[in-house]
Amino acid sequence: MIPRYSRPDMVKIWEPENRFRIWFEIEAHATDALAERGVVPASAAQALWKWWDTNPAIDVAAIDAIEAVTKHDVIAFLTWVAEQVGDEARFMHQGMTSSDVLDTCLAVQLTQATDLLLADMDALLAAIKTRAMEHKFTPTIGRSHGIHAEPVTFGMKLAQAYAEFARGRERLVAARAEIATCAISGAVGTFANIDPGVEAHVAAKLGLAIEPVSTQVIPRDRHAMYFATLGVIASSIERLATEVRHLQRTEVLEAEEYFSPGQKGSSAMPHKRNPVLTENLTGLARMVRGYVTPALENVALWHERDISHSSVERYIGPDATITLDFALGRLTGVIDKLLIYPERMQKNLDRMGGLVHSQRVLLALTQAGISREDSYRIVQRNAMKVWESDGAESLMELLKADADVSAKMSAEEIEDRFNLDYHFKHIDTIFERVFG
Amino acid sequence: MIPRYSRPDMVKIWEPENRFRIWFEIEAHATDALAERGVVPASAAQALWKWWDTNPAIDVAAIDAIEAVTKHDVIAFLTWVAEQVGDEARFMHQGMTSSDVLDTCLAVQLTQATDLLLADMDALLAAIKTRAMEHKFTPTIGRSHGIHAEPVTFGMKLAQAYAEFARGRERLVAARAEIATCAISGAVGTFANIDPGVEAHVAAKLGLAIEPVSTQVIPRDRHAMYFATLGVIASSIERLATEVRHLQRTEVLEAEEYFSPGQKGSSAMPHKRNPVLTENLTGLARMVRGYVTPALENVALWHERDISHSSVERYIGPDATITLDFALGRLTGVIDKLLIYPERMQKNLDRMGGLVHSQRVLLALTQAGISREDSYRIVQRNAMKVWESDGAESLMELLKADADVSAKMSAEEIEDRFNLDYHFKHIDTIFERVFG
Amino acid sequence: MIPRYSRPDMVKIWEPENRFRIWFEIEAHATDALAERGVVPASAAQALWKWWDTNPAIDVAAIDAIEAVTKHDVIAFLTWVAEQVGDEARFMHQGMTSSDVLDTCLAVQLTQATDLLLADMDALLAAIKTRAMEHKFTPTIGRSHGIHAEPVTFGMKLAQAYAEFARGRERLVAARAEIATCAISGAVGTFANIDPGVEAHVAAKLGLAIEPVSTQVIPRDRHAMYFATLGVIASSIERLATEVRHLQRTEVLEAEEYFSPGQKGSSAMPHKRNPVLTENLTGLARMVRGYVTPALENVALWHERDISHSSVERYIGPDATITLDFALGRLTGVIDKLLIYPERMQKNLDRMGGLVHSQRVLLALTQAGISREDSYRIVQRNAMKVWESDGAESLMELLKADADVSAKMSAEEIEDRFNLDYHFKHIDTIFERVFG
Amino acid sequence: MIPRYSRPDMVKIWEPENRFRIWFEIEAHATDALAERGVVPASAAQALWKWWDTNPAIDVAAIDAIEAVTKHDVIAFLTWVAEQVGDEARFMHQGMTSSDVLDTCLAVQLTQATDLLLADMDALLAAIKTRAMEHKFTPTIGRSHGIHAEPVTFGMKLAQAYAEFARGRERLVAARAEIATCAISGAVGTFANIDPGVEAHVAAKLGLAIEPVSTQVIPRDRHAMYFATLGVIASSIERLATEVRHLQRTEVLEAEEYFSPGQKGSSAMPHKRNPVLTENLTGLARMVRGYVTPALENVALWHERDISHSSVERYIGPDATITLDFALGRLTGVIDKLLIYPERMQKNLDRMGGLVHSQRVLLALTQAGISREDSYRIVQRNAMKVWESDGAESLMELLKADADVSAKMSAEEIEDRFNLDYHFKHIDTIFERVFG
Repeated sequence: MIPRYSRPDMVKIWEPENRFRIWFEIEAHATDALAERGVVPASAAQALWKWWDTNPAIDVAAIDAIEAVTKHDVIAFLTWVAEQVGDEARFMHQGMTSSDVLDTCLAVQLTQATDLLLADMDALLAAIKTRAMEHKFTPTIGRSHGIHAEPVTFGMKLAQAYAEFARGRERLVAARAEIATCAISGAVGTFANIDPGVEAHVAAKLGLAIEPVSTQVIPRDRHAMYFATLGVIASSIERLATEVRHLQRTEVLEAEEYFSPGQKGSSAMPHKRNPVLTENLTGLARMVRGYVTPALENVALWHERDISHSSVERYIGPDATITLDFALGRLTGVIDKLLIYPERMQKNLDRMGGLVHSQRVLLALTQAGISREDSYRIVQRNAMKVWESDGAESLMELLKADADVSAKMSAEEIEDRFNLDYHFKHIDTIFERVFG
Repeated sequence: MIPRYSRPDMVKIWEPENRFRIWFEIEAHATDALAERGVVPASAAQALWKWWDTNPAIDVAAIDAIEAVTKHDVIAFLTWVAEQVGDEARFMHQGMTSSDVLDTCLAVQLTQATDLLLADMDALLAAIKTRAMEHKFTPTIGRSHGIHAEPVTFGMKLAQAYAEFARGRERLVAARAEIATCAISGAVGTFANIDPGVEAHVAAKLGLAIEPVSTQVIPRDRHAMYFATLGVIASSIERLATEVRHLQRTEVLEAEEYFSPGQKGSSAMPHKRNPVLTENLTGLARMVRGYVTPALENVALWHERDISHSSVERYIGPDATITLDFALGRLTGVIDKLLIYPERMQKNLDRMGGLVHSQRVLLALTQAGISREDSYRIVQRNAMKVWESDGAESLMELLKADADVSAKMSAEEIEDRFNLDYHFKHIDTIFERVFG
Repeated sequence: MIPRYSRPDMVKIWEPENRFRIWFEIEAHATDALAERGVVPASAAQALWKWWDTNPAIDVAAIDAIEAVTKHDVIAFLTWVAEQVGDEARFMHQGMTSSDVLDTCLAVQLTQATDLLLADMDALLAAIKTRAMEHKFTPTIGRSHGIHAEPVTFGMKLAQAYAEFARGRERLVAARAEIATCAISGAVGTFANIDPGVEAHVAAKLGLAIEPVSTQVIPRDRHAMYFATLGVIASSIERLATEVRHLQRTEVLEAEEYFSPGQKGSSAMPHKRNPVLTENLTGLARMVRGYVTPALENVALWHERDISHSSVERYIGPDATITLDFALGRLTGVIDKLLIYPERMQKNLDRMGGLVHSQRVLLALTQAGISREDSYRIVQRNAMKVWESDGAESLMELLKADADVSAKMSAEEIEDRFNLDYHFKHIDTIFERVFG
Repeated sequence: MIPRYSRPDMVKIWEPENRFRIWFEIEAHATDALAERGVVPASAAQALWKWWDTNPAIDVAAIDAIEAVTKHDVIAFLTWVAEQVGDEARFMHQGMTSSDVLDTCLAVQLTQATDLLLADMDALLAAIKTRAMEHKFTPTIGRSHGIHAEPVTFGMKLAQAYAEFARGRERLVAARAEIATCAISGAVGTFANIDPGVEAHVAAKLGLAIEPVSTQVIPRDRHAMYFATLGVIASSIERLATEVRHLQRTEVLEAEEYFSPGQKGSSAMPHKRNPVLTENLTGLARMVRGYVTPALENVALWHERDISHSSVERYIGPDATITLDFALGRLTGVIDKLLIYPERMQKNLDRMGGLVHSQRVLLALTQAGISREDSYRIVQRNAMKVWESDGAESLMELLKADADVSAKMSAEEIEDRFNLDYHFKHIDTIFERVFG
């Protein structure tokens, strides 16, 4: 966890206090279920909840001090609770193993984290949508291979991003379901010393599904799928960040990360306004992706479990969710305040003297009865002049002045082939598909 | 593609012939849709299908020869088709770009590949289920950290594998939906020169969804998610393979990969029967996982596309699906014919002289009125003898001979605490959860 | 192995024929050493070499046919050799295990592959050096964050690439030493049935070092280091490829991948000349990097070996070396024929109206006695006009016309601050450091 | 950085205070060199060092407070130093850019970290060597595929680990040289505003090499190679950890992680002593490996630099080195105190009734004049009895009682073939190779 790439709500989920609170709830709900089955006295469960109702502070330092002696975190916690609650607390944890608590707690933490991430994605989607609508018909050049191809609109670029993050959101919902399970099944998953009904009760109370069959632990293919999904979302962040970085290049400058009017880009160079936020997002995406492989390697635990996954999860549980949360928030801010320059987009569109329309003229000449070969030759000889002039010449004007063209097409007809709107006639359809 | 790790049905999907067949269908369906819109003559589409109905052979070498001249695979293909079909073929591909064909073709290939993988998983699930039912109540020791913990059944181990692969199957269905989209949207995705209805028609005919918004290409977050899912499934294969490898160790030998009665394990060492298939699966899992990161790196293409993803997909499209198909098939064979040794399982269970039951005796003494501290001391002094004898002594017999124990528990009551069935009372519940 | 990304010399290394040739040499050299020790008759070794001197063809099909029966590749090979050589061949392989042959063979193949890669790097370095010298003083804008910063020369960019690939070459030499070891140490590495001198003899003959201590196999940390090194070199390829892709962007166009004069970029769009080679290299780099993790996962084999590494190496041995060989060759071609546009570089340098020199004027005013705050204000008010004009205005001309500036600096002094050569005074030093 | 997997010396390297100290030294040494060149007054450098000689505390909070205003870490630091030193401090940083300081500082931090790691490896190597010498001739079974193969010694296993970590140490020395470079070359690496001699001076003072050609930053292929090397070492840690985990399995139990005499393995199960340290190391290895790919992705920065690498390095700089330092320390402790059970090794060796010697008897019968086919048949019929008895029968005794054997070999000769020492005759040679 790197403080500068962290936001407090997500950090809180991974702090000891939250973990202890979840542990308590698991234990107390389990005690309820045990009491209902007559395994422990009803008073035991009542005592726990009565204390909890006082909204007690969790004394993390005290628990740590006990752990320093017992060398066991769950026992340390239970001991501390017993000190607070009194004798009735001794019925807690009956028939359970530490992993029942730890793994179910991780499930709760990951669902909490995912709920924040889902809210992040909603905010991002809203920001993208607003800007997409704003620039639905702002013309800009579409580029393949970094080379001008044909016109698109800036809104369409954002619609693509919207559709991609909407898919990401759906994937995240599925990933949440993957890890939202509760296992309270004992030392090797047989329920030898605890009734499966306890698991069902705790699961229901915590908003989790039951784990159909566990070993000592919840199977780690679930978590692998979860972290792989975060890696895909991070890659989508990188894609949009890379787009902004490209657009902000000095030579392109069609959009820029926000800077306040009085802000200095550089103390020495007034032209310096760097896309540092999106470059940062590119790096953060690498990190979130980097956590995928350790998560995949965690799947093949030995027999009913080994504990090699645990250290990995102590890193990537917080790191992947905190980093992604921060990155989604940062990207939302970038999009929300993105400086968009339609004039520059138009200027870039025009910079090749109308060459982006050459294909349409070619087709028009063909339809006007000139053979395809001749049409190509005619257009090309004019296009080459434009190309060689580095866009100083205008293809439209040259075509008007070309006798072979003017013999077949009026000036108006030629101009019509340079109409950007031709390219945008299906933008409504596309927006309908994406935004409904 | 490594021939020894390949199966013919999956290989065929990635061969040029299949690709060309799919290209034809995309072009011909598109021509149908264009004809319906009056963009091209109806006779053009008819001519294509009429030729196709003759079930013509695809002359890959001829197409390659044309490509050697044109340096463009799609044009080479169209040229060859035109040579076969005649003049009417010139209306094909109107308003389309190569990527429309290539990306939609990849979608078809990946859905075909996924359908094979789904069938593979069904076969694997069936094999696991059969063996799970067979050994539903075969006792075996559960191990955490590689150390004996408490009893489970061998069927339960297989039920865990079944549940995991059933999850994998669901994920694969979702992954299939991710990549099963059709894009026929022109050079930068605006449909400038082709009606969106053509895309819808082709999609429907090929069993694909339409891509709501494409650039020049289908967005690669879809493929990233797809290959990430294969990586998770491969990790589950590694898990089950690792279990078999452990069980076949000389000292454990609770199960073995099949070998035929007359087979020699080694020309020199009759005791050598190596788990080479599951070791091989472990390696194959590493490869399928290794393809996840390149797929994630493919997402952030520049602007409306760059072609860096293409070379990656030429490797991982075939390699990931062919390897996973082979691995699933091999694992199914391993499980199907796995030699399972219940006697050895029992022997291993017993090898610690009944120590695995010490917890139950401890609880019984406590319930019989001895303090927990005393109970622990009593059990421990006997357990230690068993431990020091390396399992030669029997905990049960020692307890029977211990006056402090016999004062509180009859021989029968003691024996009852060594009953394996106690641990298996919820196996039915677990199987019900997993197999329904 | 993807044929389109493969070159024949590297492919040959991984073909069965080369493998069998290496196997023979290992066996024959070992037989020599065994004969010298009196373990086998001298005539046995002589018979082998006598046959080998006839330069016999390797009948791969025949060996495969034997393997189909024996299910063992090394035995199949030995059987085939025995058929050719006659009775004396029965003394081959005395005291050796298959892994002795297989692992030592892999070492030879990897050294052969590395020698090709080193030659590739030499060719690449030579190409870069030639172009660097050619453009040692070609001014171009240096960019940080994709934004114009200060001037550099194009040769300096290439010097950076040269230094990076020179480092890569050194790393490759070290990586070659990592894997160039020979192990002929028997079933578990104890030399129980073969004298260590045999290993030493074979190693010397094959140009390998002895493996100081092997298990059944050569330890895989060596190969992990090797493939990790290839991944780093691939990343350097990506870096230079990315530079070219950026330079070829329509708006930048300072360099382009070669295209022949008559070549069409696109049948429809004369402005389309796409950096497809460097995009391709970007994808290939992803693949070579993708092989690093499986190689790292191969290290932790169980005990004296398990065979999980083998399948991984069947993929990545050929795939990583063949892909990298192809990529190095392709990059060499790109650099060798790169179209470099100094005029466009100058135009881009100038496009901001001289703003890149603002820092120097600021310093000059300070040295002329104006306070830093005032100097900044003076320069900024002129710079802002240039910025707002999108480079149409000239900072130099505006400064000359600014009374506060002209009061302190003559026109000549101002012009001097816009001298590019100021930035290039240490280029010689840098080139000396890089090229010696 | 996870506190429980961190050691204070390594953590300190990454704390702000150490960073600020290094920044100061870079700035002060640079000021020395500038003074020597007459660029700044000699008094400026003297003032800096005079203050430094007072061994001033670094007020991290004060610097952070300034950064909160300036939004620039290096400027904040310089401002704070100026407050301490006074007016002379204004000459610091002349002609330098922030990256000159930041990148050179990272080089110093990584060399400091590497020096700790080298010391860690020395300690690990020493621990392994001690135990290897102790058990140089302790017989144990060698296993391929997890299956008993032929005898080795436990010392030999450790010699293998020693050789592997000795290679790792050499790699780490090479990796240290990769990143130990100093760049003070200005905004785009041209030394436009600072003499290359300053860089040379600072480099010499800090024990770094000069970076022959930098952009704005030190090229990231260096760091990629560095982190890749850490990934390889982590994989070697995993290998040795996995060996211990296997040896500690209940059924094998040839070695165990240390536990103190009075320690309880589990409150309920006296047989539970889990290899939790080596399982933990397995997980930590996954993390260190996981950092390799982000480091590789950092190489291809855009043009003269983008800042995407920075966030990645804020994670992996500390995380990879701190985790590896901790892991090396933990592994050293494990080896140092490893409980090794020679009796159990012998018992396991014997558990197959002497089958591991079958090959030697086979060879002896052949040499005694029986055909290979007959010899095999004779040995096999006895070996099978042993196999079927699960090691209860003794191969040696059965052979003695077999008339076909006793006709050719005396009891003594048979016994001789079961001599373990036969396998260990080259252990001295191997140890000589490894330990010198």
